[in-house]
Amino acid sequence: MTRRQITGFSNPTVKYLRSLREKKHRKRERKFLAEGLRLLTDARECDRVPEMLVMAERRDPHPLLTALEEAVTGAGGEVIETSDEILAKITGKSNPQAVAGVFAEWNTSLSALDRQSAPIWLVAQALRDPGNLGTMLRTGDAVGAGGLILLDDCVDPFSVEAVRASMGAVFTQQIAQARWDDFLLWLRSGDGQLVAASLRDAVPYRGAAYAAPCFILVGNESQGLPENYETACDLRVTMPMRGRADSLNAAVAGAVLAYEVLDTFENPAS
Amino acid sequence: MTRRQITGFSNPTVKYLRSLREKKHRKRERKFLAEGLRLLTDARECDRVPEMLVMAERRDPHPLLTALEEAVTGAGGEVIETSDEILAKITGKSNPQAVAGVFAEWNTSLSALDRQSAPIWLVAQALRDPGNLGTMLRTGDAVGAGGLILLDDCVDPFSVEAVRASMGAVFTQQIAQARWDDFLLWLRSGDGQLVAASLRDAVPYRGAAYAAPCFILVGNESQGLPENYETACDLRVTMPMRGRADSLNAAVAGAVLAYEVLDTFENPAS
Repeated sequence: MTRRQITGFSNPTVKYLRSLREKKHRKRERKFLAEGLRLLTDARECDRVPEMLVMAERRDPHPLLTALEEAVTGAGGEVIETSDEILAKITGKSNPQAVAGVFAEWNTSLSALDRQSAPIWLVAQALRDPGNLGTMLRTGDAVGAGGLILLDDCVDPFSVEAVRASMGAVFTQQIAQARWDDFLLWLRSGDGQLVAASLRDAVPYRGAAYAAPCFILVGNESQGLPENYETACDLRVTMPMRGRADSLNAAVAGAVLAYEVLDTFENPAS
Repeated sequence: MTRRQITGFSNPTVKYLRSLREKKHRKRERKFLAEGLRLLTDARECDRVPEMLVMAERRDPHPLLTALEEAVTGAGGEVIETSDEILAKITGKSNPQAVAGVFAEWNTSLSALDRQSAPIWLVAQALRDPGNLGTMLRTGDAVGAGGLILLDDCVDPFSVEAVRASMGAVFTQQIAQARWDDFLLWLRSGDGQLVAASLRDAVPYRGAAYAAPCFILVGNESQGLPENYETACDLRVTMPMRGRADSLNAAVAGAVLAYEVLDTFENPAS
């Protein structure tokens, strides 16, 4: 297989790869970076093959790395070898993993979602923290959700931090981005129960009447959900708060709710 | 009330305050920083009063800020006024909140814990992410846990990021730091059920035989728990994993388990 060698920090490809750590460049190029053999293997097994693969010159051979290289070459992509130092500069990590890949972003419009493909969907409004976003994707994968719908001004799901925190779920979960009004129109054009954790007019989250496809909505980390968003929900549920705080971390709230919904669906009350 | 004005970036107090963002300086001084009126008010209401209060010169008056200033002065602490720019330098945030405080760290030995004071305790092993640590403190507060026990080499619970993510729970939750062997000795010297999420010889987490005081153990973000730690547990439970992943984010796993334990305790099976 042909591999291009890059030895200079000032190489245009290095500059291009580094630029993908910044949102404005990702948006312009519509590409993103993912690192590590495990993450890239998850991607490959989900038929997401990087357009460009960057490997450390000094790396241990691994059958999964060979499979990755073959997939990239087979799809007409490019394989690059470079030094640990340049890889560190690209990924922004002092101890980078031995491999990184550049992926083309995919369509994240609501019309690309098939709501009947899963009983649970996670929905986040104005989520600001990439770690929370990645964690929600990971939780979605664990509960067998279809994907994550990002409302209003959320952090970029293709940021390096979100991709990393998703532990590969960015490739297994469907992702959509929409404004609230458009989401509501789409939601009401078919089946779907919208559920939020709320303190207003809410029922206990345990054993509530969840129905599939169930859309679990969590709000912004510091503001929570706007009141009219809560009002538009089909079901408002409340979780016990036994301490001083009146809310949970957004990703935690989503996960506790999602596991409750999953249990309701898998073990209907006797 | 007397307030000291600081106008220069090179003032020794500014250098001292900035240094508390680094672990080595925090450990030497045994002090830490917390920012924001809400967090500092939580602290005050838990009888944790900062030794030093730093306020922006240009700030809006607020009765809670007055109460804070009185508490600090009353306890013999110092109140400092400075510019937005210097406050930004101290906190490392470009838009800092109008107030920050310096607290003395407290005793975090196991002997300071009263295990009978709460039915649930969270325990984390080698937790590396300050956001996860703060989130676990916040979850602990929400489920009425007594506190968080940090085993082996965890990130510093008094780091700015952990304190921020805890949303004040760093002041309401007890915190202990210990090596595994010492923790196990302490645990076995009294009542306590040690529970871990595990794939080995585990029962479903829903409806498992939880008993108070219940110690919920989660492992390191990338390695999980060492096998001998799991073996030492009284109960190993498993959560559904319906996707490709075989684990959850550490703080999420702890939260889903903690809410299940809380429900078991509050709503014993009919």
